[in-house]
Amino acid sequence: MKTCLLIVLTLLGLSALQATGQTNTNANPIVVGILVFDKAYITEFAGPLDVYHHVADGKVRVVLISGTKKDLTTYEGLRIHTDYTVADAPKIDVLVVPSGAGSLDADPKNKAAMVWIKKTAAHAKFITSHCEGAFLLAEAGLLAGKNATTFQNDTGTLQARFPTCSVQGGKRVVVDGNLITSAGGLASYEGALYVVAQLFGETEAKRIAGALAFDQGNLANALAALPK
Amino acid sequence: MKTCLLIVLTLLGLSALQATGQTNTNANPIVVGILVFDKAYITEFAGPLDVYHHVADGKVRVVLISGTKKDLTTYEGLRIHTDYTVADAPKIDVLVVPSGAGSLDADPKNKAAMVWIKKTAAHAKFITSHCEGAFLLAEAGLLAGKNATTFQNDTGTLQARFPTCSVQGGKRVVVDGNLITSAGGLASYEGALYVVAQLFGETEAKRIAGALAFDQGNLANALAALPK
Repeated sequence: MKTCLLIVLTLLGLSALQATGQTNTNANPIVVGILVFDKAYITEFAGPLDVYHHVADGKVRVVLISGTKKDLTTYEGLRIHTDYTVADAPKIDVLVVPSGAGSLDADPKNKAAMVWIKKTAAHAKFITSHCEGAFLLAEAGLLAGKNATTFQNDTGTLQARFPTCSVQGGKRVVVDGNLITSAGGLASYEGALYVVAQLFGETEAKRIAGALAFDQGNLANALAALPK
Repeated sequence: MKTCLLIVLTLLGLSALQATGQTNTNANPIVVGILVFDKAYITEFAGPLDVYHHVADGKVRVVLISGTKKDLTTYEGLRIHTDYTVADAPKIDVLVVPSGAGSLDADPKNKAAMVWIKKTAAHAKFITSHCEGAFLLAEAGLLAGKNATTFQNDTGTLQARFPTCSVQGGKRVVVDGNLITSAGGLASYEGALYVVAQLFGETEAKRIAGALAFDQGNLANALAALPK
């Protein structure tokens, strides 16, 4: 019976590893959970996924979590399959909320996803948004009294809808404690790299910046807010 | 009978549009074909996909083409579904060859894919590679006598394997006529934006750079090789 249980647990473990394409050399990895919805913008989740996945020695496990069903189509028409939904997601250490075509209207109305964001944020080490993902954090009450940014064309709308948030227009990455918001696009790589630098140090962040061909400007943007 | 044929063709048309998530306001779009293999690196295809998909007014249709089967898993563990395989791909105007874990060994041995690259390149307006995708172009004979670049750690290997190619180490984007190679990572966005600037002008390229939050450095890298 114990052998049988061990086999089942081993198979479950292998399946979990397959889901992230990573080698598990770390028994207790930091779990990065990326929340996506239908019509997700590809760079907004692919950028952070790539940055976190680059962390060495299996210290990070990245999972994609859908706000609705596991099979989604990105805004660009790419059909993807997520590992989990908000109904069965594991415990998350770094919450990543990218954007999509529904970030300003359909997605914030998804009550189950908003409840999950709030619950997950309560125990997460870092809470991050990319591009218009800030609207989802705001809807879940996480930007009240905080400094934050969003996609450049939407900073006015975010400020108007959530007046207690101090929206930093023109900033690529805004850090307020464990809350990191980024303007989206290539700045989404920078926001994720800031979190890596905080969790694993500047040397590891610089190694990953090299592997992902960050320009000197991208690297400087990512590391500017690090405590000195 | 004619009505029936019309309905079928309309449905096929709608299905093709759905596959790209784009609005067809242009009857004869530029077709960008992105070739991927199992264990594709996500940024290498997602970056160009996002850049080309941003072109306004349906002037571009982006399709993902698999070198093997339509359902693949990226290196990072994301399961994706491509629109086509090399066996049923449509005519391509811009050939995009990103990289993956198999770019230096397994993928260049894929004879059908290499034949397809060579055939497609013969009539393409632009031929591009990102990161180690250069090894696939080289294997298909397209880098002979050309200036090219690849991922920074692999420039020596590319030069050693393909001695008639002039490998430009340290360059983010190398332009040689209609052949554009990029170093990968964030430079992959820059390489794709260069092609957009060539096809649709610098104003459209700058608009897309804004929408994707290119840093000033990324934009300068993308546009540096434009004919003045």
